[in-house]
Amino acid sequence: MAERIVIIGGVAAGMSAASRARRIAPHAEVVVLERGPAAAYGACGLPAFVGGQVPNLDALRAHPEEFFRQQRGIDLRTGQDVVEIQPGRRRVVTKDGAGREEATAFDRLVLATGAAAVGLRGDDHPRLFRANTWEQAARLEAYLRQRGSRGGRAVVIGAGYIGMEISEALARRGLTVRLLEAGASVLPSLDADMAELMATAARRGGEQLAPVEIVNLARVEAILPAPQGIGLATSAGTVEAEFAVDASGLAPNVGLAAGAGVTRGLTGAIAVDERQQTNVPGIFAAGDCAESRHRITGAPAWIPLGAVANQQGRVAGQNAANGPVARYPGVLGSLVLSAFGWEAGRTGLGLEQAERAGFAVGVERIEANTVAGYRGERRVTLKWIFDRQSGRGLGMQVVGPPGTTLARLHAAAVALTAGLRRDEIEHLDLAYAPEVAPVYDPLQIAAHRAGR
Amino acid sequence: MAERIVIIGGVAAGMSAASRARRIAPHAEVVVLERGPAAAYGACGLPAFVGGQVPNLDALRAHPEEFFRQQRGIDLRTGQDVVEIQPGRRRVVTKDGAGREEATAFDRLVLATGAAAVGLRGDDHPRLFRANTWEQAARLEAYLRQRGSRGGRAVVIGAGYIGMEISEALARRGLTVRLLEAGASVLPSLDADMAELMATAARRGGEQLAPVEIVNLARVEAILPAPQGIGLATSAGTVEAEFAVDASGLAPNVGLAAGAGVTRGLTGAIAVDERQQTNVPGIFAAGDCAESRHRITGAPAWIPLGAVANQQGRVAGQNAANGPVARYPGVLGSLVLSAFGWEAGRTGLGLEQAERAGFAVGVERIEANTVAGYRGERRVTLKWIFDRQSGRGLGMQVVGPPGTTLARLHAAAVALTAGLRRDEIEHLDLAYAPEVAPVYDPLQIAAHRAGR
Repeated sequence: MAERIVIIGGVAAGMSAASRARRIAPHAEVVVLERGPAAAYGACGLPAFVGGQVPNLDALRAHPEEFFRQQRGIDLRTGQDVVEIQPGRRRVVTKDGAGREEATAFDRLVLATGAAAVGLRGDDHPRLFRANTWEQAARLEAYLRQRGSRGGRAVVIGAGYIGMEISEALARRGLTVRLLEAGASVLPSLDADMAELMATAARRGGEQLAPVEIVNLARVEAILPAPQGIGLATSAGTVEAEFAVDASGLAPNVGLAAGAGVTRGLTGAIAVDERQQTNVPGIFAAGDCAESRHRITGAPAWIPLGAVANQQGRVAGQNAANGPVARYPGVLGSLVLSAFGWEAGRTGLGLEQAERAGFAVGVERIEANTVAGYRGERRVTLKWIFDRQSGRGLGMQVVGPPGTTLARLHAAAVALTAGLRRDEIEHLDLAYAPEVAPVYDPLQIAAHRAGR
Repeated sequence: MAERIVIIGGVAAGMSAASRARRIAPHAEVVVLERGPAAAYGACGLPAFVGGQVPNLDALRAHPEEFFRQQRGIDLRTGQDVVEIQPGRRRVVTKDGAGREEATAFDRLVLATGAAAVGLRGDDHPRLFRANTWEQAARLEAYLRQRGSRGGRAVVIGAGYIGMEISEALARRGLTVRLLEAGASVLPSLDADMAELMATAARRGGEQLAPVEIVNLARVEAILPAPQGIGLATSAGTVEAEFAVDASGLAPNVGLAAGAGVTRGLTGAIAVDERQQTNVPGIFAAGDCAESRHRITGAPAWIPLGAVANQQGRVAGQNAANGPVARYPGVLGSLVLSAFGWEAGRTGLGLEQAERAGFAVGVERIEANTVAGYRGERRVTLKWIFDRQSGRGLGMQVVGPPGTTLARLHAAAVALTAGLRRDEIEHLDLAYAPEVAPVYDPLQIAAHRAGR
């Protein structure tokens, strides 16, 4: 009988694991069990779908589900809620939409159960939406379409990168958006001074983009009745709106794992080794449900991001298929987002993170042009964080107009991976052309100044 | 008496050296002797000036010359042709426009004499132009302005990056351009297969950009009389045009140095150590006249590029000012150019270079999107060159639409500097957002495939 590799979850990590397992073990059965109505789509594109920049949900698929079933030979099953893992019996129990239970045996199992909103009390309110999954985005889109294009007031809860993107998407549809953030600044994944630049862009709005009102230190405590929509009791007072989108408080989906004796790590996500294997032999985990090791600190980190999920999924899939041992070397927390006509990104440790990790931190923040002055103004604000003891880079953050951030983020991520020192970064030989890149890249200018 | 640091040449390397020396040694005299009528301008912007994208030559200056004299206290003298260096007497002899000779003593000297066209026989033809210097570009622009905006035939000699940029600039002004290249393909600094993508773009032309006719294997052998303009005898036949621009055959300006007993290296450029010092103590060289060490091969290299010149100038200036010892760690040959609506760049070794250097070369060339498919098509062609023995990256080249190349070039330059292996590149944690960067960067996709 053919070996069977079962994967729970059919989005980024799950489909990566499935595709990799299929390639490594052409004769194994590869079964993907996805709870939702759709699998194999790019969840990171959901805000753009809500904003109307992606025409429909199907556009978020690189391939239709049938492609995976027929061309790749992956047994992809949607609408299959795994309700129990029985590691001793090497099987999982699923429940379908009709409530039928079924057991599926596995030789190796990959958990790619993702993350989900922590949720508010009363979160089944008809005017409260989310946009983390296909079905949530579909529900929000159906509501937006039904209400028509008239103006109105929307509230977005949580100013992380998804909250920022959803705020832009709703503003793009002509809505007046109030963005509630529990913390003191938007984008907690950036240092507050860098995040503030993005908050300014959101408050300013833009072409065909109404300004967004940002309310900091507004933790949502309860959902209130409201005659015309939804009310929210927050630590900064009561807010009413026609509807609300909750983009706050993701946590790893670990319930199933916990029930099966799979250990969680310090971050609350599933603990794995470099091979993405959990404490239970033959059970792997990858993506937003799994913990990672941070490449700078070596400490456990939980960083639910699409690129990380894909890479971890690939490693888990290869190992679950008994391929040559694959190892995931850890995360830097690299991310970039685009909202309100600006880009912002980070890689490595933020300032506070670096201090908490015990480094003697040196910081250099500059503003610099990314093209020769005679070819225009495309200025970025860029911040390097160095270890003053070793001179090594610890983290970099950058905010600027479209097209200015990625070169700096990619280069900095490589420099952090390689442990380059400040002076080595200063003396990099980087490509230059007046309309493409400046003689001294902002990365080098900041590194140079940090040495003075 | 104050020490005096004399710098010959007042463009990229020379002005970098002067500014650095001034900062390091506030009490020294810093004298810059520039042969041409103008100093302290961005020579890399000259093609854009010819193309009308930079309004005037003065726009190519970050600061007016007076700024360097008054604010920075640099004794900047233009129109000063150094005719002799007398190292034993620690002085240089200059000749001004009126033929007056003058001796200027120095304590330390920086040679930043640049590079110049090797030249054709009869190269004082009134219809033969160049665009490497301020005065050459001014002469070409005066001719173009005087002839008016009617159409006409121009020839550009040499399809290096300056030849490509000048061809675009002339096409932009409504001229029909024939581009003559002595070699078998354009852009000899790129591998032929990558260069061909840029040749295709030039041949296609673009919005308000007439197609350029490229003639390969056309080495210009002589200038011929022509009734309506200029004739060129080439190895591919005779060509006539209204005028020609020579963008071929740069060589380092080393005449002065040779006369002073300063040694040249294997490449013909001035040999220097890591401190940019020549064989004559107290005489430094930097920029297009100086030789470099290649970071991958360790061998001497001559790479006349603006960013390199600036960094070398800074190192030479610091050492000439007796500052803390500064070291230039060498070149990767990183470059990027933008022409005909496309960008092309390289870093590290090209394929043939890598083979000649004795590496067991592995090559992977891919085409890949730089954004999520549902956010559009911004595809690049990207080529990695790896050492199959150690797995280390040796070089990377990329061609794509505007804004797609720099992130890959910068990241690859850092990876080459750090000696990252193929598998380390594959597993980089790079920032991702659907409209900014793909889940797997083309750099990673090519590295992954190279491992199969």
